[in-house]
Amino acid sequence: MSEIKNLIEKLSKLDHKNMYKNDFFWTWDKTDEELKSVFAVADILRKMREENISTRIFDSGLGISLFRDNSTRTRFSFASACNLLGLEVQDLDEGKSQVAHGETVRETANMISFMADVIGIRDDMFIGKGHAYMKEVSEAVQTGHEDGVLEQRPTLVNLQCDVDHPTQSMADMAHIINHFGGIENLKGKKIAMTWAYSPSYGKPLSVPQGIIGLMTRYGMEVSLAHPEGYDLMPEVEEVARKNAEASGGKFTKSNSMAEAFKDADIVYPKSWASFAAMEKRTNLYGEGKFDEIKVLEKELLAENAKHKDWECTEEMMKLTKEGKALYMHCLPADITGVSCEAGEVAASVFDRYRDPLYKEAGYKPYVIAAMIYLSKVKNPAKTFEALLQAHSERFLGK
Amino acid sequence: MSEIKNLIEKLSKLDHKNMYKNDFFWTWDKTDEELKSVFAVADILRKMREENISTRIFDSGLGISLFRDNSTRTRFSFASACNLLGLEVQDLDEGKSQVAHGETVRETANMISFMADVIGIRDDMFIGKGHAYMKEVSEAVQTGHEDGVLEQRPTLVNLQCDVDHPTQSMADMAHIINHFGGIENLKGKKIAMTWAYSPSYGKPLSVPQGIIGLMTRYGMEVSLAHPEGYDLMPEVEEVARKNAEASGGKFTKSNSMAEAFKDADIVYPKSWASFAAMEKRTNLYGEGKFDEIKVLEKELLAENAKHKDWECTEEMMKLTKEGKALYMHCLPADITGVSCEAGEVAASVFDRYRDPLYKEAGYKPYVIAAMIYLSKVKNPAKTFEALLQAHSERFLGK
Amino acid sequence: MSEIKNLIEKLSKLDHKNMYKNDFFWTWDKTDEELKSVFAVADILRKMREENISTRIFDSGLGISLFRDNSTRTRFSFASACNLLGLEVQDLDEGKSQVAHGETVRETANMISFMADVIGIRDDMFIGKGHAYMKEVSEAVQTGHEDGVLEQRPTLVNLQCDVDHPTQSMADMAHIINHFGGIENLKGKKIAMTWAYSPSYGKPLSVPQGIIGLMTRYGMEVSLAHPEGYDLMPEVEEVARKNAEASGGKFTKSNSMAEAFKDADIVYPKSWASFAAMEKRTNLYGEGKFDEIKVLEKELLAENAKHKDWECTEEMMKLTKEGKALYMHCLPADITGVSCEAGEVAASVFDRYRDPLYKEAGYKPYVIAAMIYLSKVKNPAKTFEALLQAHSERFLGK
Repeated sequence: MSEIKNLIEKLSKLDHKNMYKNDFFWTWDKTDEELKSVFAVADILRKMREENISTRIFDSGLGISLFRDNSTRTRFSFASACNLLGLEVQDLDEGKSQVAHGETVRETANMISFMADVIGIRDDMFIGKGHAYMKEVSEAVQTGHEDGVLEQRPTLVNLQCDVDHPTQSMADMAHIINHFGGIENLKGKKIAMTWAYSPSYGKPLSVPQGIIGLMTRYGMEVSLAHPEGYDLMPEVEEVARKNAEASGGKFTKSNSMAEAFKDADIVYPKSWASFAAMEKRTNLYGEGKFDEIKVLEKELLAENAKHKDWECTEEMMKLTKEGKALYMHCLPADITGVSCEAGEVAASVFDRYRDPLYKEAGYKPYVIAAMIYLSKVKNPAKTFEALLQAHSERFLGK
Repeated sequence: MSEIKNLIEKLSKLDHKNMYKNDFFWTWDKTDEELKSVFAVADILRKMREENISTRIFDSGLGISLFRDNSTRTRFSFASACNLLGLEVQDLDEGKSQVAHGETVRETANMISFMADVIGIRDDMFIGKGHAYMKEVSEAVQTGHEDGVLEQRPTLVNLQCDVDHPTQSMADMAHIINHFGGIENLKGKKIAMTWAYSPSYGKPLSVPQGIIGLMTRYGMEVSLAHPEGYDLMPEVEEVARKNAEASGGKFTKSNSMAEAFKDADIVYPKSWASFAAMEKRTNLYGEGKFDEIKVLEKELLAENAKHKDWECTEEMMKLTKEGKALYMHCLPADITGVSCEAGEVAASVFDRYRDPLYKEAGYKPYVIAAMIYLSKVKNPAKTFEALLQAHSERFLGK
Repeated sequence: MSEIKNLIEKLSKLDHKNMYKNDFFWTWDKTDEELKSVFAVADILRKMREENISTRIFDSGLGISLFRDNSTRTRFSFASACNLLGLEVQDLDEGKSQVAHGETVRETANMISFMADVIGIRDDMFIGKGHAYMKEVSEAVQTGHEDGVLEQRPTLVNLQCDVDHPTQSMADMAHIINHFGGIENLKGKKIAMTWAYSPSYGKPLSVPQGIIGLMTRYGMEVSLAHPEGYDLMPEVEEVARKNAEASGGKFTKSNSMAEAFKDADIVYPKSWASFAAMEKRTNLYGEGKFDEIKVLEKELLAENAKHKDWECTEEMMKLTKEGKALYMHCLPADITGVSCEAGEVAASVFDRYRDPLYKEAGYKPYVIAAMIYLSKVKNPAKTFEALLQAHSERFLGK
């Protein structure tokens, strides 16, 4: 209990006032203190739940989810986060169509929001589309609120767009902070964010982009490596470069997995599609050239297959700091010999890190809940104190 | 707060005792005082929510939704209404089949209702079917309750049938009352309920029927206009005629959009299928003649296309009272040059009325919640007073 | 109220401590006192709800449902049970694929469980698969909890596997107890669990297996009858034999519906597939031989059709004790001349027993809630007393 009080005390000293009534799109939109606030609130929520103290700040209200790509873990994370705070999830199932734009987006956004406190969106499939769509929704509900259509303005949480995947990277970061015993211990640590081979194609770029855009803020050396042609969006690399400079860290690039793994404290090997290919695919999609998309996909898979050596094997792991780097992944991973013939990671490596990987994922519901909390609650510390005071039990049967 | 108390005072003087434990099928089943009660309860719920006072009257319980036609806004409205009162929505997904009748309906209705407090149904696709189905469900749960199968009897809310769309027309009416500053100001106002061209076919008749069946009760002149062959159900027109007579209003019919728009205070231009065509289609469907349905649909679209001049253009709007009639629509509208090449309304007209249109839609969740409230709560005014007394907050973080 | 207090008193004397933090797979895993505890808790929950006393023991938390076979009534029963206790249902929709095994199951089970208090699974389609899958999930979350991945360990409720259907058989038993005025009156009663003809094929064996595995524990004569070739799993028949011996009852087998019905107090005529056929089908499915499955299905239907005389007709009913045996079914039944040309039961028989059948089904939500309650609540009686003390109303508008 005193631990919770300390965390609340810490939270009360951080400046997060601009998060109030605001959306969460990209981590690099947010100040360091704002991100620290997210970690603090996530911690408080977790500890309160562990101590069986209710964190329901909503007696009623909806959390809208809109998934334009399949999702199990993010879906459940969002549902868990909403439920923890007292919101009921209502899923907007609009199919995976990309056609909903303009009038339709504006209208739908308002129609679903009369009693919505938060909207979580995943739209990561098409370069140049996902974030744009979220902005459109955000502006629609903002206008709706200003014009008196919506009593309250639902805030948005980006559950993965084409640019960033902040609930993932923030959960990953919480995991790293916990692993190394505090944010203050990260300075000088090396993290290898590398491409890895996968037999499936077209995985979003937002995970690696989210990682280099966030991890460069903590004085770490972020080493990005991928085969030629698998570049990330240049503007995000620019963010990473500036972050590294400001935080006294480093952002390096190479085309060698081994180089990135060398002496790394953390490795994050993961497949993604190349930016150029994704852009081409988006254009073909927009032009309705589905046959050409199929041809492109085949080409891309063939290209992928040239890089099967980009696998996180035991040999690769030996290159890392004392051979014991923390292996990370957003899951599900393509595990060689388990979920596919040849994949991102060797079975024995994955196996050794299963618990840490599951724990890594376990931060996500709390990170999402924290983002919602900070966007909705006017005085975060004071409301936590009120919850502690009330000391209502989450579960009566303990 | 004193405004809420005044509304409760007003509510307490209205006779709504027959709504208790009763369903809401058609507005013309209800007395004027009962409809006034719905508006009053909707207002109270909205104002309590705005003042952050909890309106949860259910600590647990289910609201069952059954959509036999696609729906986004009605689905979210029902979900919002249930959530506002404390009910969790559980969707019964039975496909869009029309085969569920007799034994199956009776059984399913009981099986899903052991802990259901309310059932919302949308079944608007087939003339002669939707309302009949709802009655079947209603009788099944009534019998189930009487025979001791169901502890409580869930009440039904018609979320759109083949005859009426009461949650729409009541929301529309709330919008009109608000726009004109009170129900007492409607006498003598003219509302044009007109057909409009749409490139899609087969839109239900229940919206125009709901409008003429309700708006004729307030002393207004309701002017129905459509091309030849697009008649509504004669029994609903009869309801409209009788209503108009009783309320001192007028119900007129013509085949000219311009005539209806002339000096109108309100215009409601909207596409629908012709009654005869819908009936034919229902029969073909029943006989499993799917090929013939396709042929019929093509014919109907061709017929529709003859009436592209039925569009709510700026020129048409100029015919209305001072050129400033209130434009209404149940949404989504087919907007010329935006959502289709040629549609129900010109983009510039729609654009000018966007805010009012969204506000119009915003009444629906509260109207649905009010219908549920009045069907479940024994003493509506007293329970509101108890909620005010308790003054539990909807959201703790304000 | 004094009735509730008596039930709580009774509950407090039963030994159910091993149910705490434990799963519910098969009734024969549980002691007699544990099953009695389920009936007692189900009764208490029902009576508290009837007296408008809140039974919400969860302020937040998720109940995960995973249906690998279509379901309406079990789905709604689980949703009702969760809602009654304060849990929000979140459905895991993984399609009906049988491929999710090993790594995937372990991972998914943990990923959905960070805030899950209970998981309900239905997986009844393939012999040798359903229970195995549930065990896999159970072990995954157990390990996850032990390794610190999951703060709480969700308990499992078997909503129907290939072996048992405990929420059905327990609801059936509650119905029987109620019908005969107490568990003590069942000794010597005869129940006929018989096969019946259905034009559909491949119905799970878990219902008849659940019935013979449970009903043999109460000193009744359980008479199993089916055409040759429609055997149940031998290990479950062994359970039934041992149960009968221990309880002083009887377990008999025959190939004659009439023999089973003779002087029966209860009849439960219901279609199922033969064990051997189901096993063959499972193997073909595993080998991806879908064409051969179709051939097999046709053969099975032809085989079924040889036994159309296995129907619960009025003539058959006359064979039972005073011609008035209690007719039971898990629903939906194939009713001759109603839902099919020839089926499991004559329309007039079904009709006469409709109310009892619906009531039988009405026990299921409470039985499921009781299973959840006993697996989560440390001191069941004490927590009920606390709920009575608090006397929070389920619904404020009574």
